[in-house]
Amino acid sequence: MRLSELSRAAGVPTATVKWYLRIGLLPRGVPTGPNQARYDDAHLRRLVLVRTLAEVGGLSAEATRSVVDALDDSSRGLHDVLRVAHHALAGPAPANPVPEAATAAVDGFLADRGWSVPPDAPARVELAAVLGALERLRQRGTGVSPATAPPMDTPDEVRALLTPYADAVDALAAGEIAGAPDDMPRDELVERVVTGTVLMERAVTALRRIAQEHYSAERYTV
Amino acid sequence: MRLSELSRAAGVPTATVKWYLRIGLLPRGVPTGPNQARYDDAHLRRLVLVRTLAEVGGLSAEATRSVVDALDDSSRGLHDVLRVAHHALAGPAPANPVPEAATAAVDGFLADRGWSVPPDAPARVELAAVLGALERLRQRGTGVSPATAPPMDTPDEVRALLTPYADAVDALAAGEIAGAPDDMPRDELVERVVTGTVLMERAVTALRRIAQEHYSAERYTV
Repeated sequence: MRLSELSRAAGVPTATVKWYLRIGLLPRGVPTGPNQARYDDAHLRRLVLVRTLAEVGGLSAEATRSVVDALDDSSRGLHDVLRVAHHALAGPAPANPVPEAATAAVDGFLADRGWSVPPDAPARVELAAVLGALERLRQRGTGVSPATAPPMDTPDEVRALLTPYADAVDALAAGEIAGAPDDMPRDELVERVVTGTVLMERAVTALRRIAQEHYSAERYTV
Repeated sequence: MRLSELSRAAGVPTATVKWYLRIGLLPRGVPTGPNQARYDDAHLRRLVLVRTLAEVGGLSAEATRSVVDALDDSSRGLHDVLRVAHHALAGPAPANPVPEAATAAVDGFLADRGWSVPPDAPARVELAAVLGALERLRQRGTGVSPATAPPMDTPDEVRALLTPYADAVDALAAGEIAGAPDDMPRDELVERVVTGTVLMERAVTALRRIAQEHYSAERYTV
């Protein structure tokens, strides 16, 4: 198909398709003339994927490229591609150093739970940043823990705070990983894992906000 | 305390404190000289809150201001402040129109579940955008549903996809709203709800990624 047909089939404006071609997020087509090229179903599929990562996942062009490069590198295993997607989703590292006590608290919690991730996993740093922020708020008498609660770096306090959240996502994540069919071709499998990670993360966040609004309306409005 | 002491107590650089003062995210202190002012514990508390929303919550200055203004407006009820926080967290609306079928599917799912949110709730739009993206991927043979699955706007398919996620956040959200003490002063309560919403959302996302990496390593690495 021609660029205009590719654009229509994917529902992506031609200007955006040309931009993706220029920055290499979409491979060039087969030239058919001085200013024309032919595209196939692989282009269409990649275009829909790139659009999804960028628009719904909110990934920058650079982050999208890192995911697409990992998909295209068939020497990378599925676990490796998932980690690239997590790095791409994570955004910049926290502007301020995360307190060591908060990092130690996260590591203790994860070890107790038997969850093991490498030290550079962005989610580990992110969770420590959340604990550090909660502790700052607690010291100032603001936030989810009263100032009289034990500090956030006390293992019992951290366990009490995080366990309901970890329990809630545990079954989800286990099901997501277990649900991937064994006999699926690698390309389909990694696309499925990446889009599932990116899109269902948005869905979890949206559903939590909806549930909060629902229960908050029940309790606080007449 | 002086500006330098306020900065030290909150762990926020003086340049950032001055910027917050200039754009009105932090109220001015009581002038004590041509270039000096005195700040009190209310300033310190607000400074820590603003920093948390901006740095950990990732809110823009404009979004932070909308939350802070809602906190300061004592005529606003708690439910109303929570909705302002959700709008602030939501970021820009989707660049492309969300398919009507996806919006109808979300409304049907929420109605079945008995969760009611107003039509302009950003999370409702966000969830519809996720369903719309999943459907586009499905049509192109990419993503979490095989191309042979029924379309995403079939109620049974939507229910099968979203129910485990909705179940996972249901108990969390109910506990978060129910856990707020009845006798807490309004200011503390709304700060607690807002910080809990913003920070624990980051925690949920981080924990889901950690759990995914853990289960993915178990299945896909030796």
